[in-house]
Amino acid sequence: MNKEITTEILEEWLENVRPYAYDGQVADYIPALSRQNPEELAVAIHYIDGSSIHAGEIEATFTLQSITKVISLALALMDNGEDYVFDHVGMEPTGDPFHSIYRLEQLPSKPLNPMINAGALSVTHMIHGDTPDEKVGRLLSFVHEMTDDHTIGYNEEVAASEFETAFLNRSLLFYMKQHQIVTGSVEETLDAYTKQCAIEVNVPQLARIGALFANEGRDLDSGRQIIPKHFARICKTFMVTCGMYDASGSFAIKVGMPAKSGVSGSVMASLNGFGGIAVYGPSLDEKGNSVVGLRLLELLSNRYDLSIF
Amino acid sequence: MNKEITTEILEEWLENVRPYAYDGQVADYIPALSRQNPEELAVAIHYIDGSSIHAGEIEATFTLQSITKVISLALALMDNGEDYVFDHVGMEPTGDPFHSIYRLEQLPSKPLNPMINAGALSVTHMIHGDTPDEKVGRLLSFVHEMTDDHTIGYNEEVAASEFETAFLNRSLLFYMKQHQIVTGSVEETLDAYTKQCAIEVNVPQLARIGALFANEGRDLDSGRQIIPKHFARICKTFMVTCGMYDASGSFAIKVGMPAKSGVSGSVMASLNGFGGIAVYGPSLDEKGNSVVGLRLLELLSNRYDLSIF
Amino acid sequence: MNKEITTEILEEWLENVRPYAYDGQVADYIPALSRQNPEELAVAIHYIDGSSIHAGEIEATFTLQSITKVISLALALMDNGEDYVFDHVGMEPTGDPFHSIYRLEQLPSKPLNPMINAGALSVTHMIHGDTPDEKVGRLLSFVHEMTDDHTIGYNEEVAASEFETAFLNRSLLFYMKQHQIVTGSVEETLDAYTKQCAIEVNVPQLARIGALFANEGRDLDSGRQIIPKHFARICKTFMVTCGMYDASGSFAIKVGMPAKSGVSGSVMASLNGFGGIAVYGPSLDEKGNSVVGLRLLELLSNRYDLSIF
Amino acid sequence: MNKEITTEILEEWLENVRPYAYDGQVADYIPALSRQNPEELAVAIHYIDGSSIHAGEIEATFTLQSITKVISLALALMDNGEDYVFDHVGMEPTGDPFHSIYRLEQLPSKPLNPMINAGALSVTHMIHGDTPDEKVGRLLSFVHEMTDDHTIGYNEEVAASEFETAFLNRSLLFYMKQHQIVTGSVEETLDAYTKQCAIEVNVPQLARIGALFANEGRDLDSGRQIIPKHFARICKTFMVTCGMYDASGSFAIKVGMPAKSGVSGSVMASLNGFGGIAVYGPSLDEKGNSVVGLRLLELLSNRYDLSIF
Repeated sequence: MNKEITTEILEEWLENVRPYAYDGQVADYIPALSRQNPEELAVAIHYIDGSSIHAGEIEATFTLQSITKVISLALALMDNGEDYVFDHVGMEPTGDPFHSIYRLEQLPSKPLNPMINAGALSVTHMIHGDTPDEKVGRLLSFVHEMTDDHTIGYNEEVAASEFETAFLNRSLLFYMKQHQIVTGSVEETLDAYTKQCAIEVNVPQLARIGALFANEGRDLDSGRQIIPKHFARICKTFMVTCGMYDASGSFAIKVGMPAKSGVSGSVMASLNGFGGIAVYGPSLDEKGNSVVGLRLLELLSNRYDLSIF
Repeated sequence: MNKEITTEILEEWLENVRPYAYDGQVADYIPALSRQNPEELAVAIHYIDGSSIHAGEIEATFTLQSITKVISLALALMDNGEDYVFDHVGMEPTGDPFHSIYRLEQLPSKPLNPMINAGALSVTHMIHGDTPDEKVGRLLSFVHEMTDDHTIGYNEEVAASEFETAFLNRSLLFYMKQHQIVTGSVEETLDAYTKQCAIEVNVPQLARIGALFANEGRDLDSGRQIIPKHFARICKTFMVTCGMYDASGSFAIKVGMPAKSGVSGSVMASLNGFGGIAVYGPSLDEKGNSVVGLRLLELLSNRYDLSIF
Repeated sequence: MNKEITTEILEEWLENVRPYAYDGQVADYIPALSRQNPEELAVAIHYIDGSSIHAGEIEATFTLQSITKVISLALALMDNGEDYVFDHVGMEPTGDPFHSIYRLEQLPSKPLNPMINAGALSVTHMIHGDTPDEKVGRLLSFVHEMTDDHTIGYNEEVAASEFETAFLNRSLLFYMKQHQIVTGSVEETLDAYTKQCAIEVNVPQLARIGALFANEGRDLDSGRQIIPKHFARICKTFMVTCGMYDASGSFAIKVGMPAKSGVSGSVMASLNGFGGIAVYGPSLDEKGNSVVGLRLLELLSNRYDLSIF
Repeated sequence: MNKEITTEILEEWLENVRPYAYDGQVADYIPALSRQNPEELAVAIHYIDGSSIHAGEIEATFTLQSITKVISLALALMDNGEDYVFDHVGMEPTGDPFHSIYRLEQLPSKPLNPMINAGALSVTHMIHGDTPDEKVGRLLSFVHEMTDDHTIGYNEEVAASEFETAFLNRSLLFYMKQHQIVTGSVEETLDAYTKQCAIEVNVPQLARIGALFANEGRDLDSGRQIIPKHFARICKTFMVTCGMYDASGSFAIKVGMPAKSGVSGSVMASLNGFGGIAVYGPSLDEKGNSVVGLRLLELLSNRYDLSIF
């Protein structure tokens, strides 16, 4: 485990990448996200030995958005087993944008992978729970367990706002309902999904989740197996092949870390034998990834040789 | 005007094509359609001079389904004008199946034409009326005017059943809502659309509608202009280029009549200077067109040289 | 037959549409086409009674380009019969640009219709003849017969130049060779195709060809059946559904004539019971159709009610 | 480094997976490949400490086919630098089959990655050399250097046979030539590419190449840097995201090794800190991957925890 990175280094590098915050755009499709401050930056590293360092505005909270696709996948695998999950969602990366629908028209019509929206919606649909709130409650308990922090909840304003405007996700859900990939109420699945996406954390909490995946699914303090090792591995695999939207391939080459990004401007990376890294910087590039997040992870990877390849 | 076709000829030919009824399948996606009797066949010709002939079970009623796409287009053009309508739906044929969604993903994302489901849904959305029932009421009045028959209504069981299972159309509507092609309530537009599709007629009534389009939009008795000539022409053009789903090209070559089919097994053809032809035979080929309808129209076209080409 | 159109009217209207010549661009992918003068305009009408009128630079010659797709289809039908031809090329219009390749990837992989490049190449491949020159020789004889003018040949410079740069057509041919839609030498089929496209005429000659199609395939002087009526009809059907590239649908609505355009800026229309119309104006819109040609045909159609719909 | 795997284990496991050889099909598109014996199986491991073990028919030679896409990419990167290479070919995985062409139609039209055929052809085109033989000569020298075996050549019969029937690759090349992704002679680039694919090795040689990539590009004996570390890493990244055709995603989850397969039935895996693994078994699954190769690598990965995730 490489532990030469110091708080001072993190602070210095965060300043170095700060100017890039002006190269992108804060997500603006809902008011709550558009109000994010592009200058609010934070980074945290949680080592698998349990220690951690951080820099920037570590009190700042943000919604996890697409990063929850990894967490819900882990829970759906634990709820349903690998065979059931992959009967309903594929394993292959795709060169398409996350919102793409046309692939579903090709047979078999199941979503190509759990990181594009169609796939993530079908994963949320698989999480056990009779109601949206029960599903979300179970997801939150799972997050509480991973972070050892029972205060984490979801941002109701963000959830409500996304729910109201999620026409494309409704389109994807109805398309999958037509093809029996999902069943039951579209509105209920969407309710669970938008609440899931609105789960709110800060970078120290997020880095700890990344570290748990890096620690083969075991709790960092107690060593308890929270996610079976094989399922943690599946999640990290998807983080490599399709974690960064349709920039996953270039991210794998330039940075080489299993990582997942969200349109709130957050990124969670997870490195076996090292730990978890979380970055927050709400300014996004045209693919929907945090500009500052990409820069900082690239610097860290190159300087400390962190690529898994 | 070719009027050599006699009732006896129609009767004889209907018997000749009867065996083809067993080559196809009755639509089975909702119970009401699946109960249709594949042996129930009927044909009617309404000449533009107002006379008419028919054969088979002319009392049999059926829902118009996709044939209403032509009627709703005429009304939407009269309500909104040509420019507005074609700002929201394209004019080009497509080699895709009627339910296809992937084209919407290519920019600009408006539906390629008003005969595919996406386009027809956007057309229904454009019909004036504050509520679904007002839109449908106006459509029915329009049909009453065209047929001079005020008893025509819609089949509530079929409408309700289609509304309940129309997941794909909901998917298309939400996709278009995302891209601002439609606005307002998806459920309301779908309500209007499924009622529109469930408008119920018999072949003499349908042949009269076809004849009105053939008569440049003028009423067959009074000569009153019910549809402006230019809009009637637009409708007939779409019947040629995309009226028979993705078999429109081969139908144009083999039969050469402006025609529109519906999954109830009905077809309406409209020939300038001649009149309207309606066929009902619920057995469908794999493209969704009435097997008997295609056969009978091909026989008539070849024998009486009715192709417009 | 509407014969009220006079030479004076044609001359006046040609002047009226002249300004539109500056709204488009002359094709520039080969030097010979880019040298065309956008101000050189001509129009001719050949009535089915054998009389004709014209205006503009009627001595100007131009290469037929895609207009030959209609002529080669007629000859391929006569050489091989309808069944063989449509086993190798489809009948359905497509919303794709003429050069599109991706549809071939969908099974069955035969080209959707004979008016897109892939389909037209496979049609040329079907024309009888052991060598490219024999195929082209037979096509020229066919054109001589239709025009009663044995001086018509092909422009060698244009043919050679297109042959040299036809990378996309080679790509389409090799794709079809892989899928056994075409066999034998790609270079030879392309040789025949580029010479076919370079056949050079003026508007009076082209209008006469249009009139022959309008006259059910019979020679305008002798009444001899040069193209079987059914095959002439097939050609006119494709002119309606896919004759004007991916603007065929809007052309059908606005003009309503069976017509085929070429990137040299020429258009040939063919109206049953009326005759043939040819327009030349090398300035093209973004779909590849003559700007002046479209305008003039739209004016004629609207003023003299020439739409077939 | 895990070195508990013994020759005996390899031999036993090879017998265990032998029955799977009958679940697939030997490639049959050229005679030379169809003659391969599905029962001929071999496996070799080359550790990064330079030691090696093997089992099965290790004298059997086979052509590398798509595995050379990794090798040519390394050489093209060394010849042209990273920026130039990725200006001409993308970095993103794709859910499409290796032969797919339709993506090229979407702008920008460069191939999505260097592992699909279009991308690999453009990579070969970038290798320095005035003639096909010079390019292939340089590739062979590179292979000699990596294997320390100067006897390795290419199979002329396989190369000639593939060259003759490579219609799809010609289609891809002409498509890319149209879009200026490749320039010059299509036949020459294809000549170089088919010879490259016909490079012939046995499993011990192939395992050594895999080990060199695992050893950060350094020679296993001398420690000399044959491939810059960064370029070796790029190659391994593509092996993960798109090395196993459109089964790369499921392979990453089930096996988790950077690996590349070829239609001859060979697979090369490369594991940092461990070494290279080569398997040969010509029977292919429907995606084009060696059935026995996949099984054996999955067994090894699960038993010795070799996944990088």
